[in-house]
Amino acid sequence: MPAKAPRFDSLSTPALLLDEAKMMRNIERLEVQAQTLGVTLRPHLKTAKSVEVARRLNKGVAPAITVSTLAEAEAFHAAGFADILYAVGIAPQKLARVQALRAKGCDLIVILDSAEQARAVAQAEVPALIEIDCDGHRGGRRPEDASLVEIGRILHEKGCLRGVMTHAGESYGVRGKAAHAAFAEQERSATVRAAEALRNAGLPCPVVSVGSTPTAHAARDLSGVTELRAGVYMFFDLVMAGIDVCAVNDIALSVLTTVIGHQQDKGWIMVDAGWMAMSRDRGTAAQDVDQGYGVVCDADGQVLPDLIISGANQEHGIVSRRPGAKVTLPDLPVGTLLRILPNHACATAAQYDRYTVLSQGGGALQTWQRFGGW
Amino acid sequence: MPAKAPRFDSLSTPALLLDEAKMMRNIERLEVQAQTLGVTLRPHLKTAKSVEVARRLNKGVAPAITVSTLAEAEAFHAAGFADILYAVGIAPQKLARVQALRAKGCDLIVILDSAEQARAVAQAEVPALIEIDCDGHRGGRRPEDASLVEIGRILHEKGCLRGVMTHAGESYGVRGKAAHAAFAEQERSATVRAAEALRNAGLPCPVVSVGSTPTAHAARDLSGVTELRAGVYMFFDLVMAGIDVCAVNDIALSVLTTVIGHQQDKGWIMVDAGWMAMSRDRGTAAQDVDQGYGVVCDADGQVLPDLIISGANQEHGIVSRRPGAKVTLPDLPVGTLLRILPNHACATAAQYDRYTVLSQGGGALQTWQRFGGW
Repeated sequence: MPAKAPRFDSLSTPALLLDEAKMMRNIERLEVQAQTLGVTLRPHLKTAKSVEVARRLNKGVAPAITVSTLAEAEAFHAAGFADILYAVGIAPQKLARVQALRAKGCDLIVILDSAEQARAVAQAEVPALIEIDCDGHRGGRRPEDASLVEIGRILHEKGCLRGVMTHAGESYGVRGKAAHAAFAEQERSATVRAAEALRNAGLPCPVVSVGSTPTAHAARDLSGVTELRAGVYMFFDLVMAGIDVCAVNDIALSVLTTVIGHQQDKGWIMVDAGWMAMSRDRGTAAQDVDQGYGVVCDADGQVLPDLIISGANQEHGIVSRRPGAKVTLPDLPVGTLLRILPNHACATAAQYDRYTVLSQGGGALQTWQRFGGW
Repeated sequence: MPAKAPRFDSLSTPALLLDEAKMMRNIERLEVQAQTLGVTLRPHLKTAKSVEVARRLNKGVAPAITVSTLAEAEAFHAAGFADILYAVGIAPQKLARVQALRAKGCDLIVILDSAEQARAVAQAEVPALIEIDCDGHRGGRRPEDASLVEIGRILHEKGCLRGVMTHAGESYGVRGKAAHAAFAEQERSATVRAAEALRNAGLPCPVVSVGSTPTAHAARDLSGVTELRAGVYMFFDLVMAGIDVCAVNDIALSVLTTVIGHQQDKGWIMVDAGWMAMSRDRGTAAQDVDQGYGVVCDADGQVLPDLIISGANQEHGIVSRRPGAKVTLPDLPVGTLLRILPNHACATAAQYDRYTVLSQGGGALQTWQRFGGW
């Protein structure tokens, strides 16, 4: 008979599970770190996209937040969050939506890295941070770039210059606290130099904003920085575990799945969590340990040694032993419930419209809505 | 100034565009093919997940359909579709939902490949097809496997044996019509042999169901087969173009995106379509031409030579020249609208809750809802 897990009887699989106690530990860990470093934490809600999760930040006192879409900004403002950074380079066509939210009392700030964006933003009288490139990862101007002061002047003329920001996306590609601390210092140094360049030109720069999950946890000194951003830290995932930002046991998110078949000659156990349930993210493929499409746990969340989702079709996952593993394939009959830890929490969560929450104090499962779209 | 595309003025990017005229051509192409082969077409709606798309199949007469989730079965039945195959190995826990739909008059059929599933399905009096493994891709029993007749007997005792089905998922890994035709013959041969094994044991096997998009288009003879299944053919995508099932110009689905910045020294144009907008699917990575996260077109849908999305963050896409390309990077100012053709239509569409439809006859944009979940 399949392993009993009566508390999940009401669920149809695949389902997205959130362990509230682990999430709260993760949230508190970074809040303590920000306090120690003397900076404001501005959590990024691109991973969670949930009002219920947002309400558990900052001991329940609505914090300044970061978002990745205007749909998030609108949803979080409607839920009472009024200090929001939209941290994707602004397209001029989106300024009408930004202005509409600002007119409702939301202090929505945008980011940009060009004079043409600055002119549109200044004309719309929307406050902005200038994006700084600290690691060649994405957008942003280098701190030494002459255009930085030009952009600053365009914004300042209309009182729209709030400061500078950066994100060391390259920190995801290195492993261990020392390597992440070096990227944290790159973030700090680049933004502080940019802020000085602006101030030396007579421009204000009240906000100096940095962050990514790896650098936020590893930073030792953030002198000159005013705020810290991070997102996936609330849930963590196998990519973060693979670069030693967290332990596998810290991962708060998992996908509940059911065994639906076997191909015994191949050592395959088929489950109903395919790539639609896990996402196509293979973020651990380039890491020291490739976790396939996820690490397999029993229904209680205990890791089953060396079992991963080694392949995925749209609604079928193939569970098998990690290459080279010597463990015996466990006997998991059709109907057995399993939990899969995801490579990338942002991508896996995006496949679902709700979290099924294992509450901190035990008791009944809760449902927290999440949203997507733009 | 950005290229003008006033018909998209009402849209916030990224947005999922569907070219209805291309979709109708794709739909009709496979309908003609099925008619020529003398089999019933049972379209798979796992890609479209849209009632509006389903209503455009089979010249508007509700066809037999295939689905990948019970959520799809419920939604399509509510919209008037009553002959539905749920083509993922059934978990016993899902039978109550299947029975509830059947009680409402939906002829919902399940698939399975083990005696333990057959016992649960027979007890629930739900009709089933036995999944046959024709290429080692996923689930299913080999036609020669003695368990096939055992499973058939368990089902037949309760009048639940409807037939056999297979899917040659491995056909996605080969290129060209001849190679796909060989897989089509593998599908045909395996299911016909399985049907004969059942019939030789005195069991009925009215349904012999085969299909995948590559094999459905390449099949030359389907003697002994009763129905053909395919899904992504309605939209097509770069993966299908890469194995010569369609031309790039047949792809009906694209993502509208806006230029949000430049890193000129690197030859990068930043757009607001990252992996959240495109999905993490990199299905062309293993093909002859790696299309990154998608092929870049202008706002009218004309391919811009050798421009692809070469990298993606959650909400940022990096447009750059294909490695080795000699074209000059076009001047695409901030605010320019572009359209991106996706690697994998199923995965990209799943990131959206609606299609913005470029109607066949021209005229205003339409919105068609799509759904997800399980």
